This record gives sequence, C-alpha cells and structure tokens, in this order.
Amino acid sequence: MASHEPSTPHTVSSYEEELTRLNNLILELGGLVEAQLSGAIRAMTKRDSDAAERLIVQDLRIDELEETVNDLAVNILARRQPVAGDLRLVVSVIKIAGDLERLGDYAKNIAKRTLVINQSPPIAPLTTVPRMSERVQRMLDQALTAFVQGDDELAEKVWAADEEVDELYNSFFRELLTYMMEDPRNISAAAHLLFVAKNIERMGDLVTNIAERIYFTATGHQIEAERPKRDVTSLTDVSDDGAVTTETP
Amino acid sequence: MASHEPSTPHTVSSYEEELTRLNNLILELGGLVEAQLSGAIRAMTKRDSDAAERLIVQDLRIDELEETVNDLAVNILARRQPVAGDLRLVVSVIKIAGDLERLGDYAKNIAKRTLVINQSPPIAPLTTVPRMSERVQRMLDQALTAFVQGDDELAEKVWAADEEVDELYNSFFRELLTYMMEDPRNISAAAHLLFVAKNIERMGDLVTNIAERIYFTATGHQIEAERPKRDVTSLTDVSDDGAVTTETP
Repeated sequence: MASHEPSTPHTVSSYEEELTRLNNLILELGGLVEAQLSGAIRAMTKRDSDAAERLIVQDLRIDELEETVNDLAVNILARRQPVAGDLRLVVSVIKIAGDLERLGDYAKNIAKRTLVINQSPPIAPLTTVPRMSERVQRMLDQALTAFVQGDDELAEKVWAADEEVDELYNSFFRELLTYMMEDPRNISAAAHLLFVAKNIERMGDLVTNIAERIYFTATGHQIEAERPKRDVTSLTDVSDDGAVTTETP
Repeated sequence: MASHEPSTPHTVSSYEEELTRLNNLILELGGLVEAQLSGAIRAMTKRDSDAAERLIVQDLRIDELEETVNDLAVNILARRQPVAGDLRLVVSVIKIAGDLERLGDYAKNIAKRTLVINQSPPIAPLTTVPRMSERVQRMLDQALTAFVQGDDELAEKVWAADEEVDELYNSFFRELLTYMMEDPRNISAAAHLLFVAKNIERMGDLVTNIAERIYFTATGHQIEAERPKRDVTSLTDVSDDGAVTTETP
C-alpha cells in the first residue's frame, strides 16, 4: 500500500514494511508447523484417525506459505538489493522457510503413520513420544522468538536443548526393539512408532539448524560451542537375548 | 583474478567467472555426495566397517563445501545484485547446496548404521538396497547434468524417476517386517536396514526437490505434471499372521 504522506522519520518505509512482512510470514509458518506437530501427537495418543486425516490435508497450507515466503524474499533481493545484515536476513529467511516446510512434512508423516498404528492394539503407554514432541515444540517456539528479537543467546539455548530430545529418542528406540522381540505381533506398530520417534528427533535437528542460522544472522558468526550430542541409535545394537548395548562412538 | 586485458566479447567477465565457479562448486559437491552414497552402500554390502568409518569422517568435506557455496552465493548477491534469471540461479544454488548437504548426511547415517549391522549375522541377500541406491545415484547424476546444461526436460525426467525408488522401498519395507517376524534375532539388524532403506528413499525425494528447482530455474515456472507417488509404507500394515497389506490412500 503506497502512502501519500510525506516521508518523515516516523513513517515506516515500504522496504521496512516488506522486511516486517517477511518476519510475520515466518512466524505464521512456524505457528502452523507447531500446530501440526502438536495435533499429530494428539491424534496419535488419542488414536483419533479423523484428526490425523485432517492434518495430512492441512500440510498443503504450509507448502503454500513457504512458496509465498520464497516469492517475497526473491522479490526483495531483486528490487531492494539489500546488503550486510539485511542480505543475511533475507537469505536466512529462505533457508528457515525451507526447514519449516520440512518440519511440516515430518508432522504430516506422523499423522499418516498414526492411521496405521491405530489399526493395531496399543503396544505400550506412549509417554516418551509426547515428551519428545513437547520439547521440540518448545524449542521451535523459542527459536521463533529468537528470530523476531534477533536474540542470539536464546538461539544458543535452543541449539543446546536438542541434546535432551536425542536422549529421549535413544531410550525409546531401545524400548521399542524390546517390545518387538517380546511379541512379534507388536512389530508392525513398533516399526511405525520407530519412525514417528525418528521424525521427532529429526525435527529437533532441524530446529537446531534454524537456531544456528538465527545466531549467525544476529551475530555474523557461527555458534562456537561444541555441537550437542546427536542420535546414537545408529550405534545401538540388541543382542540375541534382548540386552541392548550402545557403542561409545 | 582481475584481468588487465581490455574487455572484448571474447573476454570472460569476472561476474561470469563467478557464476561458472558457483556451477563448478555445485558439481563438485554433487560428485562428493554421489561418492559418499556409493561408498556407503559398498561398505554395507561388503560388510567393510573400516570403509564405513572413513566415510563418516569424510562427510565434513561436504559440510565445508556447502559453506563455501553459501559464502560465494551471498557474496555474489551482495556485490553483483543479479536480477531475473541470474538471481533465480543464485537463489537456487543456495537451496540445492543445502539439499546436497542433507544428502551427504543421509549417506553418513547409512555408514554409521553399517557399523551396527555388521555386528549381526547377515539376515538376507541385500539386493534391493543397492538397486535403490543405483537409481538414486543415476537421478543425482542426471540432475547435475540438467543443472549445468539448464536442461528442463532432463530435470523433469529425473523428477519422474523417483517413483521407481519409492516402489523398491515399499516392497523392501514389507520384506523386512517379514524377516523380523520370522526370527526375533533379526530385529536389530532389520530395524537398522529399515532406516538405511528409508534414508535412500528420502535421498530420492531430495533429488526430486533438486530436479524441481532446476526445472524452475531453467523455465521460470513449476513442473506441472502430477507429482510422482511417494512412499506408501506409512500406510502399510502387517497382520498378526504376517500377511502384509497396503491401504489404498
């Protein structure tokens, strides 16, 4: 909307408006992703297949919103030719929108697997998965706050929080392998739960990426602390008697 | 390198040199990723844990190269302020480099899981996994060719080829669940193989993304054909007697 008022220090420039709109779109996209994740986990714990079906369809809104962000960002690059901090911000926004779209894909996949899991009887109380999901949701929420406020300390805090998600995943992975060995009838549902947990663990990694990018955008340099420990289940083995061991990398 | 010769139509401008360098970096990055994937699959089929260990370390080169691409791309955006086709190319390069880095992560994860799988006796001849991997490698190879040649038809061909990878994955997923149910001692190795196959299937999806982006960069509009079918294992169930069924979505 072009303003016809004379330009004064108090008049928000159209360029600033565009950057604000870019920020708001990222917040909207992040909010949608949070809602999809919490919805998918709720559909899973409540065994609500109807809700899961709705979530699968709603992922389209996330894809469309990512397109909108990309279009606006490229448009700003072309017309405004930002430099320094603004350039870093616009490029970061393109990357963050891509990560958020992927987060949405993982949430959609959880909803799809919920449809299958609901066809088998419950194999165990699902307490670990909601706990993992709550942590990832909190990380995402804080990452979005860090993004709008350019808060590098909060971004670093988010980045460090992923360790807890990884630990929950590692113990749940071992638990699931045990259920599978106890009763072969659990195998199908447990295999899908394995992927659900892995999806949440990957979501934690993606939010960690986002936090790194926010830190870089705010400070101009990378986080220097040691990277949090990642999923070690690729080093987890289960012996024939069901004892689970994890190799020290 | 600044040239002191007078500018003539035959003199490559420094800007063109930079764009060429950006292209070459993407090719180099793609080549590294291809080598990591084929190496990881070879290490798995040959049960070669030493090779797997080396591949895990080599992933760092991919991460560093992505950083180099990003730095150069942002540098070009800042100094050259490209418009239209060139702007689309530079933004695409940033996205493609990110996808290639993720492909490298999946290959690294296959190498990590190989270390664990090698601790159990072989559960079955692993023919499907190398077949999936060969198809993804060919897709990646063709995508890189389509990228340097701006060949939208080849990009569309790559995009369509993902269907075959998905079909292989779907049948292998069912096969693995059956192995797990036949003998609980297979469960740990089969669970890791499940993730290996899923990693390759995801790599196929990422190459499909890259192909879409190349098509868009070359033509300025999206691929209009219907999207190839994706992984349907999230809709696959196994009944108590071991019969595997796949729901029609």
